[in-house]
Amino acid sequence: MADTKRPHIVVVGAGFGGVKVAKGLAELPVDVTIIDRNNFHVFQPLLYQLSTSELDENEIAYPIRAFFRNTKNVRFFMAHAEDFDTENKVLITDHGDVHYDYLVLAAGAMTNFFGMESVAKHSFGMKTLQEAVAIRNHVLRMFENATKCEDAEERRRMLTFVCVGGGPTGVECAGALSELIYGVMAHEYHDLDFSEAKVVLVEAMDHVLAMMPDELQQETIRVLHDIRKVDVRISTQVMDYDGEELKLKDGSSIPTKTVIWAAGVKAVSFVKKLGAETDRAGRVVVEKTLQVKEHPEIFAIGDCANFMQDGRPLATVAPVATQQAEVCVQNIKKLLKDPNAKLSEFTYKDVGAMATICRGHAVVAMGSMKMRGFFAWVAWMVVHLMRLAGTYTNLTVAYKWFWNFLFGLRLGRVINDTEMQDIR
Amino acid sequence: MADTKRPHIVVVGAGFGGVKVAKGLAELPVDVTIIDRNNFHVFQPLLYQLSTSELDENEIAYPIRAFFRNTKNVRFFMAHAEDFDTENKVLITDHGDVHYDYLVLAAGAMTNFFGMESVAKHSFGMKTLQEAVAIRNHVLRMFENATKCEDAEERRRMLTFVCVGGGPTGVECAGALSELIYGVMAHEYHDLDFSEAKVVLVEAMDHVLAMMPDELQQETIRVLHDIRKVDVRISTQVMDYDGEELKLKDGSSIPTKTVIWAAGVKAVSFVKKLGAETDRAGRVVVEKTLQVKEHPEIFAIGDCANFMQDGRPLATVAPVATQQAEVCVQNIKKLLKDPNAKLSEFTYKDVGAMATICRGHAVVAMGSMKMRGFFAWVAWMVVHLMRLAGTYTNLTVAYKWFWNFLFGLRLGRVINDTEMQDIR
Repeated sequence: MADTKRPHIVVVGAGFGGVKVAKGLAELPVDVTIIDRNNFHVFQPLLYQLSTSELDENEIAYPIRAFFRNTKNVRFFMAHAEDFDTENKVLITDHGDVHYDYLVLAAGAMTNFFGMESVAKHSFGMKTLQEAVAIRNHVLRMFENATKCEDAEERRRMLTFVCVGGGPTGVECAGALSELIYGVMAHEYHDLDFSEAKVVLVEAMDHVLAMMPDELQQETIRVLHDIRKVDVRISTQVMDYDGEELKLKDGSSIPTKTVIWAAGVKAVSFVKKLGAETDRAGRVVVEKTLQVKEHPEIFAIGDCANFMQDGRPLATVAPVATQQAEVCVQNIKKLLKDPNAKLSEFTYKDVGAMATICRGHAVVAMGSMKMRGFFAWVAWMVVHLMRLAGTYTNLTVAYKWFWNFLFGLRLGRVINDTEMQDIR
Repeated sequence: MADTKRPHIVVVGAGFGGVKVAKGLAELPVDVTIIDRNNFHVFQPLLYQLSTSELDENEIAYPIRAFFRNTKNVRFFMAHAEDFDTENKVLITDHGDVHYDYLVLAAGAMTNFFGMESVAKHSFGMKTLQEAVAIRNHVLRMFENATKCEDAEERRRMLTFVCVGGGPTGVECAGALSELIYGVMAHEYHDLDFSEAKVVLVEAMDHVLAMMPDELQQETIRVLHDIRKVDVRISTQVMDYDGEELKLKDGSSIPTKTVIWAAGVKAVSFVKKLGAETDRAGRVVVEKTLQVKEHPEIFAIGDCANFMQDGRPLATVAPVATQQAEVCVQNIKKLLKDPNAKLSEFTYKDVGAMATICRGHAVVAMGSMKMRGFFAWVAWMVVHLMRLAGTYTNLTVAYKWFWNFLFGLRLGRVINDTEMQDIR
């Protein structure tokens, strides 16, 4: 790719932002390389449904190459971006160096354990497809193990599931786990006493869903507690976790073999190697034009970028990434025409926030409009179905949700990491 | 489970035979335990579609407990059956001993490499979900690696896919691989020269699909070769494989990084520990009543049993297992009423054979009726859809096939075994 005469634009990351940038540059007289360590794009907002056996891998993972089937100036390069040689405009990957004229960092975020190593070691993050599948396998295995366990204390430990973090991921995961346990497992594990099972949601602040108005925060806690039997613990901080006991700051602890950590994210660590200014979460600080300071040829968007607006960095959510992708594409087009062009400045247009709590219950806040309950849940489903990649998936996920709604089956309950012993 | 007063029937294996036996014993005054090392039932005839990215895990794997949701006398025990203590009527598993009054061995088969250790080490079997996923990941990775490889010889090696064995699995897999390569990959790997790609089908005998009439065997080879560009090599025997070169008996070799071994099966190895008479493929020789010789309390059915009919052992196919399951249930019911009852003798009613070659082409032989081409293919699809577990799957697989037929997308192209490095 080094001997090409056309400008080469390299996009790191095939999430919402990266895919949109590459699509935006299609059919231009440039060569585009989109790099990802996986060969698929993941619909991250529904990872929690994979981890709770509601959806399957294929329904939220989409082959990256399928996006660019008919756009021959975009090539996919499956590799792990590792470092930069900005002087020579080279991105260093585990599959060799890639020269760029313009570089777009859309590398995303990973779980932030805030330096708590034992927590990181024993609990589950939920930012990748592989992590979500690991949670699914572990949760299902806990039930199988519980049926074989004659020690009541140990059995309760197996059947206690803790989500840490009261953001959308933690709330949605806690609600979905509760549905899985009381709505599905309780019908099929005839030997288990489901009063021994418990879902706990732990949040350090005194509220959940920080981006929501107060009354929807209250509603969320009410539905989780009253309808879904989730033990919601706000103003509760995690101190340590050894795989058996989750230790809290107030001195108490929760015996559990399952901690799902959704309490924070940070930029993927490789972006630090750029040497540019980063914030506490490792995100690259960008100009209003989305360019990295002192590197006008490098843009950063989405979860790995820190864009200040109204005195605060924008949240790490999909709409920020997709809106930034549009401005990023505009600015690259301007630079291609004239390297000294005046670039567009990005402003995030708030599209509101939504979170589903459980079947039939969601909360939606858009500007001054607030919704809760069944119609908010339908709105949540419609928005997520529309955003899923590919028409096939739009239809099949709708069908699966409808089926799960009717029969509560959760057919995704497949433990696929059993050892391969004795198969040959 | 030891202190129960009701007769305890233990079924090993939740394949076609085992699930049918457990269902047949539901609602009787007995306790049934069905044991499997996985928590799911696999629709083995479509494993090749998982390995070629046509279908996803969920579409051919069904949670075992979902079969027995409303049958409270059947419990599922996830464990690996390891040995027998027939004197005390105990099955030994990796999760403890299980006492039985009657034992049904429906443990299935695994790949038979006929003692060729290096072949076993470097090639892929395709009898389990995990193996099929491993093939999928490997095949997809070969294409990604090929785009990065500048050595033409090495690239051809990566793009050469060999199926060994001309039975239904080998034929179907070769046809599906060819479709994947020329119908899907060729549209998305713009940098690759697909004249470098090749699918080879190797069979030791002088024909494929041994159970089919001669003209359908010829038709199969013709379609594979003329329409699907598969290099069909009959009368060709494999000698060795080191992961790079597949050595053949005639002294030639095929440079390839992918060998899918579908040339034979044998009973899972644990059934040998019973100490009863077994055949060369490790299958337990059973009486006409499906009882194991000298063990009237133990039945064996399906792929792990050797049942002689017309002087030959029955084939290891699903209809044999399901028909045997019916007679096995009848005989257990008789024994429960009267331990000295005269038991039913099994006779296999041939339901014919069918194999799909590729989109629009299949061969079907039922008695004197022979079909080929498009209508045979539709018949193949209808039969397989009807047999899939669960109404949800019946519909969704039909929908996916239709979608793949229209657009040739193969959305299952997800490499899900990438390393988890740098996600925390």
